Amino acid sequence: MLAPATVANVVCGFDVLGFALNEPNDTMHLRLTEQPGVTIINEDDYNLPTEPARNVAGAALLAFLRAVPEPVGIEVRISKAIKPGSGIGSSAASAAGAVVGANQLLGNRFSKPELVEFAMYGEEVSSGVRHADNIAPGIYGGVTLIRATTPRPDIVPLSAPPLFVTVVHPQIEVKTSDARQILKQQVPLKLAIQQWGNVGALVAGLLQHDYDLIGRALEDVIIEPVRSILIPGFQEVKQGSQAAGALGGGISGSGPSLFMLSKDEATARAVEAVMHDVYERLGLDHHTYLTTINQQGVTLVAPPSA
Amino acid sequence: MLAPATVANVVCGFDVLGFALNEPNDTMHLRLTEQPGVTIINEDDYNLPTEPARNVAGAALLAFLRAVPEPVGIEVRISKAIKPGSGIGSSAASAAGAVVGANQLLGNRFSKPELVEFAMYGEEVSSGVRHADNIAPGIYGGVTLIRATTPRPDIVPLSAPPLFVTVVHPQIEVKTSDARQILKQQVPLKLAIQQWGNVGALVAGLLQHDYDLIGRALEDVIIEPVRSILIPGFQEVKQGSQAAGALGGGISGSGPSLFMLSKDEATARAVEAVMHDVYERLGLDHHTYLTTINQQGVTLVAPPSA
Repeated sequence: MLAPATVANVVCGFDVLGFALNEPNDTMHLRLTEQPGVTIINEDDYNLPTEPARNVAGAALLAFLRAVPEPVGIEVRISKAIKPGSGIGSSAASAAGAVVGANQLLGNRFSKPELVEFAMYGEEVSSGVRHADNIAPGIYGGVTLIRATTPRPDIVPLSAPPLFVTVVHPQIEVKTSDARQILKQQVPLKLAIQQWGNVGALVAGLLQHDYDLIGRALEDVIIEPVRSILIPGFQEVKQGSQAAGALGGGISGSGPSLFMLSKDEATARAVEAVMHDVYERLGLDHHTYLTTINQQGVTLVAPPSA
Repeated sequence: MLAPATVANVVCGFDVLGFALNEPNDTMHLRLTEQPGVTIINEDDYNLPTEPARNVAGAALLAFLRAVPEPVGIEVRISKAIKPGSGIGSSAASAAGAVVGANQLLGNRFSKPELVEFAMYGEEVSSGVRHADNIAPGIYGGVTLIRATTPRPDIVPLSAPPLFVTVVHPQIEVKTSDARQILKQQVPLKLAIQQWGNVGALVAGLLQHDYDLIGRALEDVIIEPVRSILIPGFQEVKQGSQAAGALGGGISGSGPSLFMLSKDEATARAVEAVMHDVYERLGLDHHTYLTTINQQGVTLVAPPSA
């Protein structure tokens, strides 16, 4: 099973917009076990916790199993390609992959909104916040809008025109919890209005396949001015990418990864070159991805080994 | 020429969303005069100022004429059916009608975004704020989103499914400037996120013609809780209308008018009955409109009398 990386926040769409990427993906294998409960086996070098309640996939599966009346045992083997802490939905991939896989093993008895709810317990383990903006695109694929998370997640899948996504992950650490703490809890109404004008316009640009409007709407007057300070090279990457023809972009999730959207592959390659240049000049190890939007979300590549 | 009433704010879409109504309309006649400058003739009983700089249509025309290199004289006769202070875009109708009419007299040399900019000077005379959320639907027709007003208005026309609009104007006074003053200048980030989730969802609901989503997105967690206190009967109208099947609604502009959206005419009639009941019980004079969304904006009904 492949669980995709995801970009959350999407500039103006803080906490409400996200999309799935065709790469990188975590590889996960799930199977039913005789012993009820959750077993986590990490097949990578990240030394993530294996105690289910402290593991992202584990916490999601525990929430899933609480909704299943009969005793069920699930073992999950995880080989992560999405580096934890990179800001492209590493924890969401584990949580989304786990619940989609478990649901498949039990005959798909839960709906996508229900799976999102279970997986949000995994996000809580990782960041302290039960947010859905990486989980939802991981489960639905494509671009998703979270209208609300309470009382239940209200998820709106949005069709989008073809978009190329260039991502750079500079190897610095920005913890989601720290990135949340530096945000002001009160924002000027004036800026909030600008932000929701941009969110509305971004949704319209996506649905109407209007690249120019998407570009104009990719403006964040609230979060980016604060958080971009945590990410060396941010302004250079953003300005250089836009000069190279990118529609726009910004911080992926809470960083440190940055993403840029482009209309065509040649532009996305030029953006990738800008990203390399900036981080080579800064002497920072970094990794880039040039990919497109994943329309399926978590993908079963082989029959479940039940 | 008919200049339509408009509903601005549209629940969660404070300052960014608006739509035009098929009724009521102001009637306006414009003609070129030999004497350069602006002449205002009021043909109604509202005793609005006739000095151009203090008149909404006049201020809009003065801004329009500043962009015209040659000396031009314009006379405008206005018969208002949209009561000033009702909250359904009375001032915007005068301003939008004036600039659309003047543009027609001069061979349509200005674009719609430019006309919006001129007309915003009229709004400034009326409310102290150069806002565009009534002006834009008045000029474009339909539902419009204002992505930004600076450096220039960036207006996004949104297609919408058929919607019936019921409006009630209780005869109390709520000044736009007062309604602005009671708003807090800082809002909790948490509520702002909810609001932009709803704005994005409302835009998606309109463009995808998804009535249920429109209904769920018609939620305002920032402005309505404060402003609705100024409007007697607000909660009764809102709850009664939703019980009668309305998709949702709220304060039109800064009030006191309230509007409700319905999927079909029978529901809109039931909503109108609820509105009558509430204000009869409260002993408040009131007027209702049952109409649909005007798709044309300001309409020329006769050749301009140049």
